[in-house]
Amino acid sequence: MALRVASVLAVASLICLAAAPVRSQAPAPQSRQAAIDELVTANHILANEGVLDGYGHVSIRSPQNRDHFLLASAGAPALVTAANIVEYDYDSKPADGSAAMGYLERFIHGELYRARPDVMAVVHCHCPEVLPFANTGVALRPMYHMSWFIGEGVPVFDNRTGFGITDMLISNAPLGKALAAALGNRSAALLRGHGAVVTAPSLHLVVGKAYYLNLNARLQYQAMQLAGGKVTYLDTAEARKAEQNYERSWDAWKAALPTGAPAGPR
Amino acid sequence: MALRVASVLAVASLICLAAAPVRSQAPAPQSRQAAIDELVTANHILANEGVLDGYGHVSIRSPQNRDHFLLASAGAPALVTAANIVEYDYDSKPADGSAAMGYLERFIHGELYRARPDVMAVVHCHCPEVLPFANTGVALRPMYHMSWFIGEGVPVFDNRTGFGITDMLISNAPLGKALAAALGNRSAALLRGHGAVVTAPSLHLVVGKAYYLNLNARLQYQAMQLAGGKVTYLDTAEARKAEQNYERSWDAWKAALPTGAPAGPR
Amino acid sequence: MALRVASVLAVASLICLAAAPVRSQAPAPQSRQAAIDELVTANHILANEGVLDGYGHVSIRSPQNRDHFLLASAGAPALVTAANIVEYDYDSKPADGSAAMGYLERFIHGELYRARPDVMAVVHCHCPEVLPFANTGVALRPMYHMSWFIGEGVPVFDNRTGFGITDMLISNAPLGKALAAALGNRSAALLRGHGAVVTAPSLHLVVGKAYYLNLNARLQYQAMQLAGGKVTYLDTAEARKAEQNYERSWDAWKAALPTGAPAGPR
Amino acid sequence: MALRVASVLAVASLICLAAAPVRSQAPAPQSRQAAIDELVTANHILANEGVLDGYGHVSIRSPQNRDHFLLASAGAPALVTAANIVEYDYDSKPADGSAAMGYLERFIHGELYRARPDVMAVVHCHCPEVLPFANTGVALRPMYHMSWFIGEGVPVFDNRTGFGITDMLISNAPLGKALAAALGNRSAALLRGHGAVVTAPSLHLVVGKAYYLNLNARLQYQAMQLAGGKVTYLDTAEARKAEQNYERSWDAWKAALPTGAPAGPR
Repeated sequence: MALRVASVLAVASLICLAAAPVRSQAPAPQSRQAAIDELVTANHILANEGVLDGYGHVSIRSPQNRDHFLLASAGAPALVTAANIVEYDYDSKPADGSAAMGYLERFIHGELYRARPDVMAVVHCHCPEVLPFANTGVALRPMYHMSWFIGEGVPVFDNRTGFGITDMLISNAPLGKALAAALGNRSAALLRGHGAVVTAPSLHLVVGKAYYLNLNARLQYQAMQLAGGKVTYLDTAEARKAEQNYERSWDAWKAALPTGAPAGPR
Repeated sequence: MALRVASVLAVASLICLAAAPVRSQAPAPQSRQAAIDELVTANHILANEGVLDGYGHVSIRSPQNRDHFLLASAGAPALVTAANIVEYDYDSKPADGSAAMGYLERFIHGELYRARPDVMAVVHCHCPEVLPFANTGVALRPMYHMSWFIGEGVPVFDNRTGFGITDMLISNAPLGKALAAALGNRSAALLRGHGAVVTAPSLHLVVGKAYYLNLNARLQYQAMQLAGGKVTYLDTAEARKAEQNYERSWDAWKAALPTGAPAGPR
Repeated sequence: MALRVASVLAVASLICLAAAPVRSQAPAPQSRQAAIDELVTANHILANEGVLDGYGHVSIRSPQNRDHFLLASAGAPALVTAANIVEYDYDSKPADGSAAMGYLERFIHGELYRARPDVMAVVHCHCPEVLPFANTGVALRPMYHMSWFIGEGVPVFDNRTGFGITDMLISNAPLGKALAAALGNRSAALLRGHGAVVTAPSLHLVVGKAYYLNLNARLQYQAMQLAGGKVTYLDTAEARKAEQNYERSWDAWKAALPTGAPAGPR
Repeated sequence: MALRVASVLAVASLICLAAAPVRSQAPAPQSRQAAIDELVTANHILANEGVLDGYGHVSIRSPQNRDHFLLASAGAPALVTAANIVEYDYDSKPADGSAAMGYLERFIHGELYRARPDVMAVVHCHCPEVLPFANTGVALRPMYHMSWFIGEGVPVFDNRTGFGITDMLISNAPLGKALAAALGNRSAALLRGHGAVVTAPSLHLVVGKAYYLNLNARLQYQAMQLAGGKVTYLDTAEARKAEQNYERSWDAWKAALPTGAPAGPR
């Protein structure tokens, strides 16, 4: 009898073990190394696709600690390696207590992660095509489903409002907090005389949004030139329904990365 | 005597066999594998030339069964391989009876092949340059002989007309049928807030038409900016006469494909 | 004595032989093979720089026979090899008397060489940026010294004038002769609904002129958008003085050609 | 005792030697070879990034002699090698007393170095995007922090003013001096019907300024089209504060250079 019970239990255990991956409720968090490697890839993709120039950056919230984020501390995005990635806290200080260091504008990331528990990835870019909109107050509107998130509205943040004459950078916590307040719940904001910030619930999404924010700007500019004010944009409800995940784009952009020495933006 | 007749017949047979390729009335249909391989090449060409982004697709009517078409079921066009190609019926279901799967918008292809017996290849793209036209109602017109087919007229299909607020995709049969009805007998239609579809009697032709639809849009935009309404387009009769076959373009684009890892669109 | 004279003569001969390259009055004509190889390179340069698409061509007057020209008979410019080059007469027939064959538009070349004894190289292109000018009658004007030759004036030829509804091609001698008459003594003419032709006294020059004709069109378009009619172009006398030879450009473009499989235009 | 003193001194010397790099007050001047190698790299970067075409050039003031500068004497920037670099004096004559030779426009460099003791590097380019501004008198204004130096004002120099009809080149000392006078203390000037000159206190800075001068022009053009006169540029004080050093850009551009045969501008 005991033998039979033991056999049954043994067989049941084997069945459970075999079925375990199917039964798991939530995926295990990405390992720190895997997260860092993907972040490096995202840097390279954004440089290769002309979204990030030598300056600008991309970060992710740490999978291991919600109150930290991972961001390169130095270097052009095209050249970032895993060794450049530093873990920061909400104050944009290295989480290991070492002296404050890194990109002057790491405060963009720190303050956005602090203000937005839903945000898991942030891009700061000088994407060229948005500058005409950032500097004229003409509102970005979604031209198509690939830039659906623009339907949320894209506010323009101007350092001058509240901070007077600056060097245009978001280089301290007060500026970062003001930017987060202006962004509110939305995906993206433009920075007058500077560029843009983009947020998303994942790294692949933030890369796709940054790319299509930039492309949408150029297409909207052309549409407005073609027909004055009479352009049909996505309706707000259409924009919400048209949400994309950009996974296929990520795969193609990753495969397009040059092997060996990275290529810069064109 | 019999020997002589037999000899004459034998010689005549040999002559006929040798001359057969010259004498054949219709070319043998392309083999399924050759068709699939060319379709994969077309995917890569359209990605490399910036016509297809990570999304969008190209298909061909099956050479073996007129009522079926071949289309990748997953993946960015730049990365499609022969293993991704699935054979579908007019209902955009896998022809082998397995469960429905594939691109959400395979219905574009299924309904166009159903409605258009003359169409042998279809492209669905988010070609950037056409979006300003798709969203303003400004009619595309043929700027030159390379985009001769635009002379047929390029209607604009809008999901909103008949279907209210959608996610902008052609993701079911009713939407696909409405699109086919709007397209009528023409080569191409624009999709408001989305992109375009292009049809042709062959794969090489559909690739060329998609490329030149996109380029024509940009050149027409520039011409209209240069001289307001006073642009001379191809006359309808000129457009009909100017029909191209794009074979030289196909050869050049194919030779331009990167070896090894495919390059994405720029 | 005889020995001394012989010695003197021998030494003199050696001196003359050594000095011969310096003393020659006119350079020996380029060998046929060298001319063909350079023509193939020109095809590849023009494709790689986006001046020629899969269609369009470049030719040179034969160094061995002024009444003949060398032109590829088939294939996209990116893929042309020495084996494709055919020698034609002014009637655009193969000079070796074989049956008429080659590009439909070889008559552009034949008639231009016939009409213009000064012309040693011809390009026919569908250079995109000139199309808005070709279709609007807005006159191309020289924006800078690199496109100095535009100061001669760039007439627009339209098949419709004299030939009614055509397929837009210059595909016979009468059309070619009419084009040559419209071009007159100038470097370049635009073809309404089609593209352009460019002529020059050398191959390197015609390649440079074609490239800068295309670029000048885009820059002039932008200048006109920026300031309406108030654009300062090169004065006719400045344009004449600003003549370039494009040798450094040729060297750079040649070095930029991809090794192995040719890259197509972007 | 003497032994102890000697020991202490020896140890102290070793400590000082070890600490020497940290203690040095001013960096040793760059070696001539290192300066030449970096200048060659700058040539290649500017060609690869589309700032310099086959013509145009970049120079540096000699680290070994303030009254001399280093500039290639021949060749397209994409193809310049160390062997092409010549050392010139303020009269744009080779400093070693050999016969005058080199680029026709070396006088741009000679006269700018003579007039501007602060300038350590000069670029002369035909950067396409500035031509519409150079030819219309529309003032370039800084769109963002990356082109902060435009806030100094960018004058337009026209050979015609004082020199009548010329070939548009700055090909002698009087023209070079007039250009230097027009430039004054600023970073950059446009040349009507020609291009631009850019100056900076270092090579990396002049490369960055030339790149962003060109990009700013295109973005400003688009902004002006979007909103007429109502564009917000950097305030003069913002521009001064926003000074960049472009080091990260230099690193990315250098890493992007093709290995082997150099790529030309696109």
